[in-house]
Amino acid sequence: MNSTKTKTAISPTRAENYAEWFQQVIKAADVAEISPVRGCMTIKPWGYAIWENIQRELDKNLKATGHKNVYFPLMIPLRFMQKEAEHIEGFAKECAVVTHHRLERNDDGKLIPAGELEEPYVIRPTSETIVGEALSRWIQSHRDLPMLMNQWANIVRWEMRTRMFLRTTEFLWQEGHTAHTTSEEAMKESLLILELYARLAEETLGMPVIKGEKTASERFPGAENTYCIESIMQDKKALQAGTSHFLGQHFSKGFNIKYASENGNEEFAWTTSWGVSTRLIGGLIMTHSDDDGLVLPPSIAPSHVVILPVIHKEEDRERILTYCETLAAELRKQSYYDHRIEVEIDNRELPGGEKAWSWVKKGVPVRLEIGNKDIAADSAFMGRRDNPYKQKQSIKREDLISSITVILDDIQSELFARAKKFQTDNTVVIDSKEAFYEFFKGDGGFALAHWNGDEAIEATIKADLSVTIRCIPFEHDGPGTCIFSGEPSKQQVIFSKAY
Amino acid sequence: MNSTKTKTAISPTRAENYAEWFQQVIKAADVAEISPVRGCMTIKPWGYAIWENIQRELDKNLKATGHKNVYFPLMIPLRFMQKEAEHIEGFAKECAVVTHHRLERNDDGKLIPAGELEEPYVIRPTSETIVGEALSRWIQSHRDLPMLMNQWANIVRWEMRTRMFLRTTEFLWQEGHTAHTTSEEAMKESLLILELYARLAEETLGMPVIKGEKTASERFPGAENTYCIESIMQDKKALQAGTSHFLGQHFSKGFNIKYASENGNEEFAWTTSWGVSTRLIGGLIMTHSDDDGLVLPPSIAPSHVVILPVIHKEEDRERILTYCETLAAELRKQSYYDHRIEVEIDNRELPGGEKAWSWVKKGVPVRLEIGNKDIAADSAFMGRRDNPYKQKQSIKREDLISSITVILDDIQSELFARAKKFQTDNTVVIDSKEAFYEFFKGDGGFALAHWNGDEAIEATIKADLSVTIRCIPFEHDGPGTCIFSGEPSKQQVIFSKAY
Repeated sequence: MNSTKTKTAISPTRAENYAEWFQQVIKAADVAEISPVRGCMTIKPWGYAIWENIQRELDKNLKATGHKNVYFPLMIPLRFMQKEAEHIEGFAKECAVVTHHRLERNDDGKLIPAGELEEPYVIRPTSETIVGEALSRWIQSHRDLPMLMNQWANIVRWEMRTRMFLRTTEFLWQEGHTAHTTSEEAMKESLLILELYARLAEETLGMPVIKGEKTASERFPGAENTYCIESIMQDKKALQAGTSHFLGQHFSKGFNIKYASENGNEEFAWTTSWGVSTRLIGGLIMTHSDDDGLVLPPSIAPSHVVILPVIHKEEDRERILTYCETLAAELRKQSYYDHRIEVEIDNRELPGGEKAWSWVKKGVPVRLEIGNKDIAADSAFMGRRDNPYKQKQSIKREDLISSITVILDDIQSELFARAKKFQTDNTVVIDSKEAFYEFFKGDGGFALAHWNGDEAIEATIKADLSVTIRCIPFEHDGPGTCIFSGEPSKQQVIFSKAY
Repeated sequence: MNSTKTKTAISPTRAENYAEWFQQVIKAADVAEISPVRGCMTIKPWGYAIWENIQRELDKNLKATGHKNVYFPLMIPLRFMQKEAEHIEGFAKECAVVTHHRLERNDDGKLIPAGELEEPYVIRPTSETIVGEALSRWIQSHRDLPMLMNQWANIVRWEMRTRMFLRTTEFLWQEGHTAHTTSEEAMKESLLILELYARLAEETLGMPVIKGEKTASERFPGAENTYCIESIMQDKKALQAGTSHFLGQHFSKGFNIKYASENGNEEFAWTTSWGVSTRLIGGLIMTHSDDDGLVLPPSIAPSHVVILPVIHKEEDRERILTYCETLAAELRKQSYYDHRIEVEIDNRELPGGEKAWSWVKKGVPVRLEIGNKDIAADSAFMGRRDNPYKQKQSIKREDLISSITVILDDIQSELFARAKKFQTDNTVVIDSKEAFYEFFKGDGGFALAHWNGDEAIEATIKADLSVTIRCIPFEHDGPGTCIFSGEPSKQQVIFSKAY
C-alpha cells in the first residue's frame, strides 16, 4: 500500500458484500474482534473508547434529568423470572443459566462443574425482575416517587445468530428503571427518554432516526407500549437503535410494587424501562463508514486529529517533531463536546502512505501531514475523513488552531447531512400491495404504507418478505386506506427489513 | 430524633459491635443493601456515586500512564481455566458455572434449565486466562509491546462467608493486564501500579496504607510476586486494599504468548495483572466513619455541601430558598478534584433535626443551615462532618464562597491525619514470641516482627491466632532475629488479623 493507491482500503466493498464489508471495517479499524466465547466479542481499545464517549454523553443527560446510577446483581433467581408471564415467555429461550458454584476434577482429571445449586440463577437478559423485587421493598409512599434509576451493565442473551455489535450473546448497555404515581407521568418519562435517545443518535452519533411506537408483535415482553428509534443503514435495512418501554402496571402487579397515595389509598405504581447498548456502535459504523474504512463523527472519536510527521532526512527529525508537538499542545488546550481535543502524533517507522491509510481506516476526522515545506510556510497539509483521501489542503497553523472546533463541527454536520439525505432518498410512500412487494423484492428501504392494524397481515408480510413494521411513526400524514386490505387506516407505518 | 439529641445516630456503636456497626452505617447512609441473590449486594445511588468518583480518579491516572480500556467476555471457556496450573487450583472452589442456555417448563409447569452446553463456561473470577488467549494472538513482535490494558468489569467468586463491600459473591473492579519484553519492565509496571493504588488510597480516599510484597502463601494463584497495599481499620484488623501481580512468564507459557525480539528470536512475554474493587468503599467506610454514621472524604463525596433552609414562617420561604439557590449556584461554579462542587438543597418537609441528621449519617462534608438570622448577617451556619455534630460556626457568605475549596481540603487532610495517627498508634514492634501472642490475644493491631521466612511458622501462627503476614513491607529497618525461631531474619514483616 502507498499514498498513490487508488483501490479501496476495505475489501470487499459495500456494493460487493455489505455484511462482510462491515466485519472488515471493524477489523481494519481494530475496533473489536470475535472472541473464542460463542457469540461474544472482545472490544478493543479503539472500540471501547468510542463506547466511553457515548456513555459520557448519555450519562450526563440522564443525570441532568434526575436519574441516579445504581448497580443490581448479575444473577437473577429463577423464581423472579416467572412473576411477569409475558416477560418469561419472551426471554426463556435466551437465558444463560448458572447451575453450579465450583469446579472439581473427575477420575480422569478433567474439570467438571460441582456444587449444584438448589435454585439456578439466570444471567440477566435485562433486569426488570430483580429491580421489581427491590422496588416492592423500597417504595412505600408517594413521597418515594418518582424513583429514577439507571445502570451501566453487561447483559447476556443466548442468540442463535450473532453479528459483531449488532447482536452478540453478551453486550454492554445502560438500562433505566423508573417508577411513578400515575400512568401519565410514567408515559411522559418513556417519551422523555426516547427524546434523549433520539438526540444522542442524531446530534452525537450523526445517525438520523425515526421515532415511533412498536406494534404489539414487536413489543418488549411485558411492556404495555414500546417506543423506539429506527435508523436506516447503508444497505437500506433498519436498525432499532434504542427502545423505551411504558410497562404500565404489569411489573408492579407481578412484584407487588405499591405506594400509599396522598389520601392514604394503596396503589400500584406505574413503571418504565429503557436501554441503548453497544449496538449503537454497530449502527454508527454502518451509517457513516465507507469503502476506505471507519468514519467517526468527531463527537465520539477517540482521537480527533492525527499528526503525521513527514521526515525525509534524519537531520530534520527533531525540528519537525518539535513543531508537531507544539501544534498538538495548542490543539489539546481546546475542548470539543465537553472533552479535550485528542491529538495523536504518529511516530512509527512506517512508509508514509501506510501510516496515513491506517488512520483513514480508523476513521480519525482530521489528518495533518507536516514536513519541511509545511513548516517553512508555517502550515499543515490537512485531510478530512469526510472528503476523499486525495483531497487535502494546506492550512496555516494559526487558522488551524483558531478554527479546529469549527472544522470538527463541520465534519459532524456533514456526516449527519449525508446520512439524513440517504434516509430521505430511501424512504418512500407506497400506495399499492403490488408496489410494496416489488419494492422489497428489489433493493428495499423504508416504506411508508397504510395498514389497518391487522396482525395477520403483519405476519404474512414477515413470512413473505422478511419485512416487519419498524414503527408507527409519531410524525405522519393522517388517515388513509390500508394497501393490503382496502380497509381504513389511521396512519402510515414504516416497513423495512431489519437487523 | 431532634437537634438536641446526644445519643449516637448508629446503634450499635463501634465499641459495642464493630461488625454490626458497619452494616448499620451502610444502611443509615443508604449506600447499598444485601440483595436476595446469595452473597451479592445492590449498590444504591449514594454508594454508586462514590464508586464513580473512585473510578474517575483512577481511570484518569491509568490513562495518563498509557493504559487503554478494553472489554473481554464475562464467560470463560472451562478449557482456558486449566492452562495455568496454580491458577485453576486457586479458583476452582469459587467458580459460578454456566451449563445451560435456555429455560423450559417441565411437566409440572416449573421452569428448569435446558439446552445443556457441550462445554460449560465459568463466570470470570478474574480474566488472566481469557486475556492470555487473546495476547497469544495479538502479540507477534517486540513492536507490539508493551501492551497496557485495563477493564472495568463485574466479577463473580463464590464466597462462603460474605460481607457487604468487603467480600461479596459479585463485585465490581478494574483489572489491568499488561505484557512486556523484559522481566525488569514488567516488574517496573507492577510497582508503578502499586504506587498509583497507594496514591488513590491515601490522597483520594484518605486511607493510609503500607506497601509491600506478599509471602508465597498469600500470593495470587499463578503469580510470581504479589504486591499489595494494606490498610488498618478502626477495629485494628487489616484490609488488603489493592494488589498488583508480577506474573513472570507463568501465563505466557500457559497461553503461548510469544514475541519476535529485535534480533529475531522467539521469546515468551512477561506479564502483569492488578486490581482494585468496590472493596475500597468498605475500607473507606471502616476507616473514617464514626458512631454518627458515614464520613466521606470530600474528594469522593457525591455531594460536598448540603444546604438546609431553616423556615419557621411560611412567608419567609421564598426569600430563604432564593438565598440558598443563589449560594448553591456560586458554590457549583467551583470545582474540587477536577469535578464540579456538588451542592444539594434539602427542601423536604421534615423536622430540622431529622433532616440534618440524615446528612450527617450520609457523611456529607459540609452542612449549611440558613434561616432569617443568617440571611440578615449575610452568612450561613456551618457544620463540618469531621467535627462533632454540635460544633457549628457562623461563616460569612463571601468567606464561604472564597474558601470552600480550602475547607474541603482541610477536611480531606484532617481525615487522613486522623487515620494516619490511628495507623501509627496501632503499629507496634514486637520482639518476642510471648509478647506477640499476648498482643493478638488482646486487641491486636499491626505487629512488626522479625520472621525467618519459614512457611511452617506462618501456618502455625495462622492456626493459633488467625493472624497472617499482611506483607513484607518495602520500608523496613533491616535485618534482625526471627522472634519465633531465633534464626536470622532479613527484615521485619507485618502481622495482623485481616478481612
